[in-house]
Amino acid sequence: MSKFLNKKYENLEVYTPGEQPQDMQYIKLNTNESPYPPSPGVIKAINRPEIENLRLYPDPECNVIKEKLAKLYDVKKENVYLSNGSDDILNFAFIAFTSGETTAIFPEITYGFYQVFADLNSAPYKKIPLKEDFSINYKDYCNAEGMVVIANPNAPTGISLSIDEITEILETNRDNIVLIDEAYVDFGGESCIPLIKKYDNLLVVQTFSKSRSMAGARLGFAIANEDIIKDLERIKYSTNPYNINRLTMKAAEAAIDENDYYMQKCSEIVSTREKTAFELKTLGFTVLPSLSNFLFVKSNEIDGETFYKELKSRGILIRHFTTETIKDFNRVTIGTKEQMEVFIKEVKEILKERGK
Amino acid sequence: MSKFLNKKYENLEVYTPGEQPQDMQYIKLNTNESPYPPSPGVIKAINRPEIENLRLYPDPECNVIKEKLAKLYDVKKENVYLSNGSDDILNFAFIAFTSGETTAIFPEITYGFYQVFADLNSAPYKKIPLKEDFSINYKDYCNAEGMVVIANPNAPTGISLSIDEITEILETNRDNIVLIDEAYVDFGGESCIPLIKKYDNLLVVQTFSKSRSMAGARLGFAIANEDIIKDLERIKYSTNPYNINRLTMKAAEAAIDENDYYMQKCSEIVSTREKTAFELKTLGFTVLPSLSNFLFVKSNEIDGETFYKELKSRGILIRHFTTETIKDFNRVTIGTKEQMEVFIKEVKEILKERGK
Repeated sequence: MSKFLNKKYENLEVYTPGEQPQDMQYIKLNTNESPYPPSPGVIKAINRPEIENLRLYPDPECNVIKEKLAKLYDVKKENVYLSNGSDDILNFAFIAFTSGETTAIFPEITYGFYQVFADLNSAPYKKIPLKEDFSINYKDYCNAEGMVVIANPNAPTGISLSIDEITEILETNRDNIVLIDEAYVDFGGESCIPLIKKYDNLLVVQTFSKSRSMAGARLGFAIANEDIIKDLERIKYSTNPYNINRLTMKAAEAAIDENDYYMQKCSEIVSTREKTAFELKTLGFTVLPSLSNFLFVKSNEIDGETFYKELKSRGILIRHFTTETIKDFNRVTIGTKEQMEVFIKEVKEILKERGK
Repeated sequence: MSKFLNKKYENLEVYTPGEQPQDMQYIKLNTNESPYPPSPGVIKAINRPEIENLRLYPDPECNVIKEKLAKLYDVKKENVYLSNGSDDILNFAFIAFTSGETTAIFPEITYGFYQVFADLNSAPYKKIPLKEDFSINYKDYCNAEGMVVIANPNAPTGISLSIDEITEILETNRDNIVLIDEAYVDFGGESCIPLIKKYDNLLVVQTFSKSRSMAGARLGFAIANEDIIKDLERIKYSTNPYNINRLTMKAAEAAIDENDYYMQKCSEIVSTREKTAFELKTLGFTVLPSLSNFLFVKSNEIDGETFYKELKSRGILIRHFTTETIKDFNRVTIGTKEQMEVFIKEVKEILKERGK
């Protein structure tokens, strides 16, 4: 820390991304990336003329891609906002709608960044414990006193709320922003995007990082009432109007045109997830009911940290959290069928070793 | 504006980027982009395997590119910070080092975004008038009472301070951050990067957008004492740890390896600039002494807005500002030799038309 840093950031606890070790090739099941490459049209879209055009700034209005997303989700272009990854949108929402005054309300166990955004923006926050089965009690968020922030499906549990439950949260929070982070919704969940037509307090956030195989391209989007979108644009035009890479826009435009490719890959991931869940349960694991591209699992024989370390030593990375209530769980991203077969084989060997 | 937006942003005046009209092909001399494409190695670096790897998150530590930049500028890797365009870094500096408390001090006529960042972050600010010749009086920034922010060369004037003058500002502001925005330094200016070894209060910001032909790739970098870099990293890890596109990193790595290509293009731009300046002066224009990739020019016969509109109607875009003190000037980005010949030809015709 330099002597120049504003004192309010002295104790700021930053977000810790999943490890990206460079010492060897791992089977990476730790950061919820897609195991599949982007679709053929994306490969074609990033061509020589487009690379040469990198000399030019991107379209700050993101017109083409906004129109395509609007069509895909049956909303108007004015309902769509784009940013450099969905984290950027979440941060902008905390800036625009809390700003050190409005309380942010989110689950105790959820995406760790919500608390970081609240801290950074000096927003008060209230963390609500999950139910004993690790699900969210939607009633805890009805008639809230502040901005409601819910990942649906939730991370790292993978458990989803129903659209009816989200609707009741929206209905009882007409004067509060309800931010639904749908980063993982394409793996079996149901999007609440259609509800933006009825609820002007709903802000839905999605990303191209998971179901659209573009974590490295950095593209998130929000869908909401057009006034909320204008607020986010205002923050964008006060920070970084050219916040999206030209090639990313071209890639994303091609990806939307090939939506079927991605939905097919999502259903493969869902099928691999169900198979993996079944096998883990057979091996005595507790497996939470996930509608995402990961499983949150606990061995009934090995503590969470040991399980994580054993797998790492065998070339498989999963995500371990040190928070007390979930320290015996690990989050396992769903890879290809072949990767998950290796994963299950190694899990069996770990259990066998310990049984000796 | 939605009813949810925090009231403090109600009157926030956002930054207006240069126009990007889609109605026809213009000769674009309005946003200081390079007229030359990225180097051959960049075209090669963005290949099929790298596009397929878009499924993976980028390295949040940006290790490879930090090492390359450190080597190029003869500093340590720990002195380098990277972000999604230099606007991102400027904003982070305002967050980290002002935060509604420390005053930001910058010229009255300069990059318009400094005031926006101050407003967004509720930082008090003081705007210091330029001298009558539109240069910065460096003495105005000695013994400042807050964070000094200077674009060097300044925009939109193109006029540069000397290293000796910057050194005196640094020497007399040991307890203040001195941010030197060197977006345009490669076109004949002198970088103050070597001074970071002596001054722990110096923060130098540069970009790949201008001299490295990558405005569309979004990459800015900062070089400073390692404690200042740690502060910027802290803000980054509290907002968007994966803030740089994978392909951008690959492109930038290749660009650094081919630095000679870019320095050669910069010297072509300098030579075209000098030729254009000479011709404009011959035509009776006031032309400020620029060390950047643009000229700030005033016709002695036509007001600024008319000149801008006349050129636009002839297919040439330049940048017009409405601020009272500079409303008769326009900023003209230096394009290729051929583009500038067309520009001069059209200027002559405009003058001729009016002479009738």
